[in-house]
Amino acid sequence: MPIDSENLVVWGDCDAAGIVYYPRFFHFMDAAFQTLLRKAGFNNRILFEQFGARVPIVDTNAKFLSPATFEDRLVVNAEVAHWGTKSFRMSYHGSREGVPVFEGHEVRVWAMAAPGGSFKTAPIAPQFKTALSAADRGGK
Amino acid sequence: MPIDSENLVVWGDCDAAGIVYYPRFFHFMDAAFQTLLRKAGFNNRILFEQFGARVPIVDTNAKFLSPATFEDRLVVNAEVAHWGTKSFRMSYHGSREGVPVFEGHEVRVWAMAAPGGSFKTAPIAPQFKTALSAADRGGK
Amino acid sequence: MPIDSENLVVWGDCDAAGIVYYPRFFHFMDAAFQTLLRKAGFNNRILFEQFGARVPIVDTNAKFLSPATFEDRLVVNAEVAHWGTKSFRMSYHGSREGVPVFEGHEVRVWAMAAPGGSFKTAPIAPQFKTALSAADRGGK
Amino acid sequence: MPIDSENLVVWGDCDAAGIVYYPRFFHFMDAAFQTLLRKAGFNNRILFEQFGARVPIVDTNAKFLSPATFEDRLVVNAEVAHWGTKSFRMSYHGSREGVPVFEGHEVRVWAMAAPGGSFKTAPIAPQFKTALSAADRGGK
Repeated sequence: MPIDSENLVVWGDCDAAGIVYYPRFFHFMDAAFQTLLRKAGFNNRILFEQFGARVPIVDTNAKFLSPATFEDRLVVNAEVAHWGTKSFRMSYHGSREGVPVFEGHEVRVWAMAAPGGSFKTAPIAPQFKTALSAADRGGK
Repeated sequence: MPIDSENLVVWGDCDAAGIVYYPRFFHFMDAAFQTLLRKAGFNNRILFEQFGARVPIVDTNAKFLSPATFEDRLVVNAEVAHWGTKSFRMSYHGSREGVPVFEGHEVRVWAMAAPGGSFKTAPIAPQFKTALSAADRGGK
Repeated sequence: MPIDSENLVVWGDCDAAGIVYYPRFFHFMDAAFQTLLRKAGFNNRILFEQFGARVPIVDTNAKFLSPATFEDRLVVNAEVAHWGTKSFRMSYHGSREGVPVFEGHEVRVWAMAAPGGSFKTAPIAPQFKTALSAADRGGK
Repeated sequence: MPIDSENLVVWGDCDAAGIVYYPRFFHFMDAAFQTLLRKAGFNNRILFEQFGARVPIVDTNAKFLSPATFEDRLVVNAEVAHWGTKSFRMSYHGSREGVPVFEGHEVRVWAMAAPGGSFKTAPIAPQFKTALSAADRGGK
């Protein structure tokens, strides 16, 4: 059972055509990912403190199926679509009153802090995978 | 009784210092104003369709009392502080778990669409003032 | 010869990891598209006034190849990758001091204002295609 | 001689009324401050590495004098209006083709990293004051 994140689209999310400025949909996807992290007992700060890791995006896409505007309730559903060794694929579906608004994906890598301030991809911590999978299934 | 608008501060609201990027607080203030409008039965679209009016900001300020970061629940309290003839002053208080985060004001004018696409300030529609005042007092 | 759009990445473009918040890359892509429109003698207002048309995005993707941070000069190169009948595909490459930062695509449709405030896809106006193609080749 | 920072207002800076979404003006103010820092040989990263300091905003205001929209060239002029012991006041003027668009202020404090991740205000480093003053006068 995927996680739902609800957003009330506000005036400031919209562009001069009166609809959501499309980069904002990626913000809503990122926020839905944070909701899943939270459900699994994590957030970006905890991941960094506990594992020395970040989960940056290396690839993303979205299809926009119908417009959304301010005062719309946008429900964003997030789930892990695939676990790789060093990366995982998130899948998102956004809807408004049951009407599909967008669908998208993110590929996120498990990146560990390396000397000199850089990050290197590394095998995903088993504890992270277990907790995120459980949260995704409605666990926790 | 002023209106409360609750925001979960997300990763994308924060800057490289790890705290809310300060222009975002004005976004939260604007969103709280929309919440008050909604409670009064309005939104920016309705104001324009029903009255031919917009309520743009001509003056605003904020004091930042303590930082907020992602995963914080930011409660923003909005109320009308003063009604003028053609303008009104909104007052905002933001807090996190009861700790004051910011306080701010906006002066908004009642601006009517004029020929040629411009807007001219005009006396506030009594119906708007009545409805907003009622919503502000916990009415509707 | 594709169009270049230069952006100085600023503090407010970055997230708490100190790098560009990834939805902002789509903002930079959109801004680069506006630069191409401008070179062709258009902008979103002119398209609407002259043709009754908008060019919304229906599909987009990006690959992030290396991070960018504040004070970086991000050059975004935009070109039309494909002309369809009712849609066209934009291609973007972003780099910093010659180092690839991202590459992305947008599929934009030619959408004409229809009665009731909605928009319907329609064949791209030949004049738009001609002008954009010329701008893309370094013309105008 | 104050520093000018030029911004081309883009589609994504505007709201559904077709004008700059007002929190973005604070983004433009912040960007103009970064331009002044740069001219003085600093940026937020250097301030933190060299002095262990940040310069967060504790108080800000803006008056909006005329609207701006996409494709406008917004010139933002930034100067230090006052030096205090632990804080300084920035003054901003924004204009479009010579027409005043906004004026604003920021009070920024000199905040030093303290144990436990917090920050405490402290006397401004003389070197910072000297360099910023020189940049402000057209020096460097």
